Amino acid sequence: MVDSLEKLVEEFSKFPGIGKKTAQRMAFFVLKQRREESEALAQAILDVKSKVRYCSVCFNITEEDPCSICKDEKRDRSMICVVEEANDVMALEKTNQYKGLYHVLGGVISPLDGIGPDDLKVKELLARLKDTQIKEVIIATNPSTEGEATALYLAKLIKPLEIKVTRIARGLPAGGDLEYADQTTLASALEGRVEF
Amino acid sequence: MVDSLEKLVEEFSKFPGIGKKTAQRMAFFVLKQRREESEALAQAILDVKSKVRYCSVCFNITEEDPCSICKDEKRDRSMICVVEEANDVMALEKTNQYKGLYHVLGGVISPLDGIGPDDLKVKELLARLKDTQIKEVIIATNPSTEGEATALYLAKLIKPLEIKVTRIARGLPAGGDLEYADQTTLASALEGRVEF
Repeated sequence: MVDSLEKLVEEFSKFPGIGKKTAQRMAFFVLKQRREESEALAQAILDVKSKVRYCSVCFNITEEDPCSICKDEKRDRSMICVVEEANDVMALEKTNQYKGLYHVLGGVISPLDGIGPDDLKVKELLARLKDTQIKEVIIATNPSTEGEATALYLAKLIKPLEIKVTRIARGLPAGGDLEYADQTTLASALEGRVEF
Repeated sequence: MVDSLEKLVEEFSKFPGIGKKTAQRMAFFVLKQRREESEALAQAILDVKSKVRYCSVCFNITEEDPCSICKDEKRDRSMICVVEEANDVMALEKTNQYKGLYHVLGGVISPLDGIGPDDLKVKELLARLKDTQIKEVIIATNPSTEGEATALYLAKLIKPLEIKVTRIARGLPAGGDLEYADQTTLASALEGRVEF
């Protein structure tokens, strides 16, 4: 096989969820693309590395510091939604429901992986909570074991500050099916029931 | 969303079989990669475009002309295996079965897409067949409607030259199941039966 093509297949194989076959199909696609298109792709990769940084306030990814959400005067500055990663912010923003601020932890507490609170932006979150404007912290870590543990840990830290701490609801997803839901989800759905 | 990240997601979405979600996961992976790794990926993309060309003999992809297969004195120069695309050569080479030469057509005859014999490397194949060393042409186009039509077309052209023309066998794939095989495959498997 051609060396440079093999090298590209190898590079693409490093991506999560991209196997050897897909990487090969992608490399052949690059080979068939027009030169300008491949150059645009290469440039986009380099741009992401040189332009994207972390917001010094909420630690979301941004090209300008502070990020557009932290700077936006129209957002509700009394609420902070705590998430694990920057892509969680993107997912929440897509719902167009939440108008408050964010705080990106940069992961979850996971003793097995050697990740403790000091490896996350917890200190920085507590520093932000000194701002008396803040009335509520919504903890939106994932409903996984680590996500739940992190949520509990944060709730314990924040409660003494006399700020309302809430957790996003767990229950059946839209389009879900009782029959196929696992026990934990079903239990959460029952527990979190709301009145008509 | 961050502009440069959005741009990269858009670029990755252009790949065949890569949807919006996968493209997004890939872009975040680039963001988390070390700078050297992203630079290696960008360089690999540019290298494929600048270094890879087509072999002037067999039209396989190569970095040097003629390609390593055409140049290899140990290969059987009495056989040419005709395939649609360069990745078919790769697939056949992996079997370690075939030791002859190749000829890459660059597609198949497909009137619906406006692709006729003149758009493929058919003329170039016929020119190669003037070499009296060549005793057999194996047509290994895909067993699709267009692949079969192209195979028939080529067979008709080559037979008058008094060169043996063969077609790769069709039948049940290894690990296949009679029950789930389609009629055409099953018919081919019966027709192509071999004696014990």
